[in-house]
Amino acid sequence: MNRFLDKVKLKIKENNSLVCVGLDINPEAMPDQFKSDYLRYQRAGSEHDQARVIHEFGRWIIKQTAPYTCVYKPQLAYYEAMGLPGMMALMRIVDEIHRYGFAALADSKRGDIAETAKMYAKALFEVFDFDATTINAYMGQDVVEPFLAYQDRFAFVLTKTSNKSSGDFQDLSFRGDGAEEKPLYQIVAEKAQAWNAEHKNCGMVVGATYPKEMELIRKLTPEMWYLVPGFGAQGADPEALIPVGVNEEGDGLVGNSSRGVIYAKDPAKAAQKLRDEINQYRWKQKQMPRAGGGGSSGGD
Amino acid sequence: MNRFLDKVKLKIKENNSLVCVGLDINPEAMPDQFKSDYLRYQRAGSEHDQARVIHEFGRWIIKQTAPYTCVYKPQLAYYEAMGLPGMMALMRIVDEIHRYGFAALADSKRGDIAETAKMYAKALFEVFDFDATTINAYMGQDVVEPFLAYQDRFAFVLTKTSNKSSGDFQDLSFRGDGAEEKPLYQIVAEKAQAWNAEHKNCGMVVGATYPKEMELIRKLTPEMWYLVPGFGAQGADPEALIPVGVNEEGDGLVGNSSRGVIYAKDPAKAAQKLRDEINQYRWKQKQMPRAGGGGSSGGD
Repeated sequence: MNRFLDKVKLKIKENNSLVCVGLDINPEAMPDQFKSDYLRYQRAGSEHDQARVIHEFGRWIIKQTAPYTCVYKPQLAYYEAMGLPGMMALMRIVDEIHRYGFAALADSKRGDIAETAKMYAKALFEVFDFDATTINAYMGQDVVEPFLAYQDRFAFVLTKTSNKSSGDFQDLSFRGDGAEEKPLYQIVAEKAQAWNAEHKNCGMVVGATYPKEMELIRKLTPEMWYLVPGFGAQGADPEALIPVGVNEEGDGLVGNSSRGVIYAKDPAKAAQKLRDEINQYRWKQKQMPRAGGGGSSGGD
Repeated sequence: MNRFLDKVKLKIKENNSLVCVGLDINPEAMPDQFKSDYLRYQRAGSEHDQARVIHEFGRWIIKQTAPYTCVYKPQLAYYEAMGLPGMMALMRIVDEIHRYGFAALADSKRGDIAETAKMYAKALFEVFDFDATTINAYMGQDVVEPFLAYQDRFAFVLTKTSNKSSGDFQDLSFRGDGAEEKPLYQIVAEKAQAWNAEHKNCGMVVGATYPKEMELIRKLTPEMWYLVPGFGAQGADPEALIPVGVNEEGDGLVGNSSRGVIYAKDPAKAAQKLRDEINQYRWKQKQMPRAGGGGSSGGD
């Protein structure tokens, strides 16, 4: 049993949703009441009150979006940029995510080796009690092992990322042992697949902005789970991505939107809209058309 | 003027040292008096006292090793693994490093894009006031720009890392437009060189455990600065590394040891020993032998 996958699968079913809501909390971008409170406490140097406001905003978002979401993903950079109040708030927001029955996925993109990677895993999985994290495997297998050693947690390896310059290195074509050339992201995908075969708790980050690459990756790794950022503010198109991204059961991925949901005028509506857009294409798999259309965990 | 390079160059001259001391503070590994105090406060839930003990240990290390060191490098994972007390202690240790006139280099290996990378840069350079950081460029140029935009700070891009599995991806062979094949780390090195040409504040992480790769990188980028981990506990050999790693002036790199210094019975002696071992080979450059032997900033 895996704490992360169990909770995600339960919520996918319960809420009929593949939506991951990214909690990238920037005090400047919060609604006016939260923002003015935060800035007032910041001027007063009241760190505990700053933390409380961030926590309250996070709870407000979770409460509204909970019926349309399958997992929450705090982006650590935003909390670190607030200093100590941010770290205090992050701990409480992770608790809040758990209280609502969801898995908490740390977008940390950590990547270090040996003793150091163990410390990052300890920080994320023990101190903050996250269920999962994103990791960067540029330094190779040494990075990955300490995270996957937590059998009830989960780690998503950066494979093909959603940003414009992701091709700088990820798209370069390499020659492995054989004569065949492959892009780096494919080599990373194959490694991640091997790590998952051994540990059963390794997924991949595959950007929603690259459907062609997603199609290749899904073909290679039909059994794996992906975190798919790029919806919402980054403008990815569910119609192009979802049919090539989902597995046979119409899931196997969670699609993330951050700013597009949490800073929307109505976060609940924004989450619902993304859920419905994604669901429109969940049963139109391009790779593996199924007789009868529906999957095993629900349909539209 | 660059705050990081200025301070490092000054200390290299003042202390005739290329040694970077890695402040990877693990409460369990501290000397008995510090350790028992820390554990007692941890049991009592007294976070401020825990932070104070870590800060005191950090100050004790800095005070002893300051005459033999050119820069200090806290590894963020260790502080994060302590939770809030760790973050409080880290802020004070950065202050302490500055109080002694040194540059503070964050070993964070952060790597994210756009708004998120800006937040990491803000956290490291504004909230914690680090002079420099390590970064992971797997996601391409988008990662790098927000850090280099701080003109008085500095960023080291992971290129060829010191760990065993660094070859999993970094050594893969790539065929570009021409017929020539290059390993991934070389492609990263060439990108880092272009970023440095534009911004003047980009260096590289090159592991001390890979002298052959270092030789190639130094040949390609004679003008760049490297952070070179792998001395001390990781067992790199200064005789093999230093002659191929230094530039014409006998510097252009800082060689890191963490556990090998801070958990030594006598940290001062351990730092002095590493300094002297490195200095033995600083003026024996393999790439660019100079008539007369000495360099412009001192000699042995």
